[in-house]
Amino acid sequence: MENWNLPAGFRYAGVVSGLRSEPDRRDIAVIVSDTPAAAAGVFTQNRVCAAPVHVSRARLPRKDAHAIVICSGNANACTGEQGMADARRMAEIVANDFGCSPEQVLVASTGVIGRPLPMAILEAGIPKAVAAAKAGAPALSDAAHAILTTDTRIKVASRKAAAYTVTGFAKGAAMIGPNMATMLGFIMTDAAVESHDIQQILKEAVEPTFNCISVEGHTSTNDTVLLLANGHGFPLRDELLDEFAGTVREVCAELARKIAEDAEGANHLITIHVVGTRSDADARTIAKAIAESALVKTAVFGADPNWGRIVSAAGYSGVAFEEHELSLSVGPHLLYEKGRPLPFDAATVSGYLKNNREVTFDLTFTLGGGRCTFYTCDLTHEYVTLNADYTT
Amino acid sequence: MENWNLPAGFRYAGVVSGLRSEPDRRDIAVIVSDTPAAAAGVFTQNRVCAAPVHVSRARLPRKDAHAIVICSGNANACTGEQGMADARRMAEIVANDFGCSPEQVLVASTGVIGRPLPMAILEAGIPKAVAAAKAGAPALSDAAHAILTTDTRIKVASRKAAAYTVTGFAKGAAMIGPNMATMLGFIMTDAAVESHDIQQILKEAVEPTFNCISVEGHTSTNDTVLLLANGHGFPLRDELLDEFAGTVREVCAELARKIAEDAEGANHLITIHVVGTRSDADARTIAKAIAESALVKTAVFGADPNWGRIVSAAGYSGVAFEEHELSLSVGPHLLYEKGRPLPFDAATVSGYLKNNREVTFDLTFTLGGGRCTFYTCDLTHEYVTLNADYTT
Repeated sequence: MENWNLPAGFRYAGVVSGLRSEPDRRDIAVIVSDTPAAAAGVFTQNRVCAAPVHVSRARLPRKDAHAIVICSGNANACTGEQGMADARRMAEIVANDFGCSPEQVLVASTGVIGRPLPMAILEAGIPKAVAAAKAGAPALSDAAHAILTTDTRIKVASRKAAAYTVTGFAKGAAMIGPNMATMLGFIMTDAAVESHDIQQILKEAVEPTFNCISVEGHTSTNDTVLLLANGHGFPLRDELLDEFAGTVREVCAELARKIAEDAEGANHLITIHVVGTRSDADARTIAKAIAESALVKTAVFGADPNWGRIVSAAGYSGVAFEEHELSLSVGPHLLYEKGRPLPFDAATVSGYLKNNREVTFDLTFTLGGGRCTFYTCDLTHEYVTLNADYTT
Repeated sequence: MENWNLPAGFRYAGVVSGLRSEPDRRDIAVIVSDTPAAAAGVFTQNRVCAAPVHVSRARLPRKDAHAIVICSGNANACTGEQGMADARRMAEIVANDFGCSPEQVLVASTGVIGRPLPMAILEAGIPKAVAAAKAGAPALSDAAHAILTTDTRIKVASRKAAAYTVTGFAKGAAMIGPNMATMLGFIMTDAAVESHDIQQILKEAVEPTFNCISVEGHTSTNDTVLLLANGHGFPLRDELLDEFAGTVREVCAELARKIAEDAEGANHLITIHVVGTRSDADARTIAKAIAESALVKTAVFGADPNWGRIVSAAGYSGVAFEEHELSLSVGPHLLYEKGRPLPFDAATVSGYLKNNREVTFDLTFTLGGGRCTFYTCDLTHEYVTLNADYTT
């Protein structure tokens, strides 16, 4: 915790309100910027969105955000008009206490779908969180804890540049958050950036980072990444803005990898490198098909060097290629070269899968300069157990 | 077995050649039509196709097919030029023994990917199968056994019309065939139909039947459905042709359902009815997203009435809709009505899932007349075990 660089002008809290069944578990977080912050957001593409996604999306981008309020344990999704009113009320409570308009407050939730928010708990808990908000690493750690569901640890990433600091924290996804794979990320900076610039920067940062992890491909109703930039003075431009965008992307990349690493029930982090496709988008499409194949993921769990499952998942991804345009390595072992299977020692490749917590697939195409790095995990008995019995 | 109606003029065999590790297991099947048969085929859409798929696809549709040869235990996929030569040789062995040209013989395989076919075994086994081919139910049963992989039973369906009989057998898929979800289906009829008519009829029959089952969405390299029609005389036309198409579709539907019912490792057959979408294709897209969600499937396994997973899978399917345009029932229990969650007794719905081997989801949209019935199964510990350790 002591190594985190924190941007100036932000306060955090994570409090215990009683939303969760575990009595001492923090479940409401707030992030406050004392001065107005430029704010941007990227949200789930699910047609069925949680109420807080609807509410926050309508308020962004903007120049004058002051706070974010987050609850865990209840997604406030598929909750109809009442859910919309409840999400707006969460923001309004913060606004009343802080002294800003409700539109200056953003909101996010994660947890079980289809249950009304227990507003009596939130009416008491949110003011407690606002009152507790403080600067510094311990307060940020409290907030990072309060957004977790079945994560085993908090995910925080920070980068310090000459003129500003970018710090983020996240929760999720997928195996980590069995109820809907919800991924939440919150990134704060004291850089001075215009709101339309950070909207674009955030969008471009999410694509190769949070959108390149998957556990089972079940897109959440609640996925939310928010970026607040509260710096003042002349906004970043040109090369300095590009440098800032790179810093935001680095923070997102570290958080995304931490999410994949913490996949509950997983024994392996699987890194899929795809290179040589016609475009980066093609590489991502192929990597995602492999990452989401239950057959590939169970094979890794069982240390079964059944590499045909990887090649065939690439084949049904929808990207056009011929077999002789593809080679595959599993770790250091080249198994399939330009459409031909190579002889290999099954015990050796099985041993590679068994003995490495982090395993790598390299798919090399001869079609162009496209590339993607994608993270996923194996499919285990523990995953089935966790997800078979989540709400009951 | 005694109730099967069989079309005239076909002979079948299923023999033990030694391709499988189990010593007494039938592993080579042949289907012979003594007179030339119109033939059609529908194949996997995977870019990575097995050699037998390439070979059979290039030979269809045609007017004068005489035989199909199938081996189980080895997919002959990702096997390069050698695999193509081996698939052609399988057909050639049959042609030499039967006395037709190799192009009149079709070929299919199912099993592990990326291993060369053991041709010495096939050189000895295929002639044995051709020599053993007989008319009648016991021989068809032998053939139906010889194409199985991890299926627990054969799948046969038959319909008798006034002027002809349509009989099919199938194997697969997915959990049943952990290595690649391969689905194979072979349909024989003594109707007189032109080859371009049966190609169209087969294509239209496969769409709402074999293409509406899924276990984990991993499209095989080897999926193959072939239809042989060896009737002579004036070909079916107009209403009689439509009636024939309906009969073929019924046989395909029964085989598809039998495949879903026999999913290894599954405790539940899940039937997903989607109605009221803008098109049948939209209904199928939504049903498929639900059927392939690991979160939905583990919830059914655990009898967890976590219905938000079903609604949210519909939401990310790619079909545009608003929440108030959707209602959901799980079995007889209406849980979500036009975008609003209804109060329900969790123990009752959990009991419904727990106590019924066949469970149903009904999704009702208010957008149009589209509809689809889709079959899948739950995701269990047994599935993970089966697929974690298939080739080693």
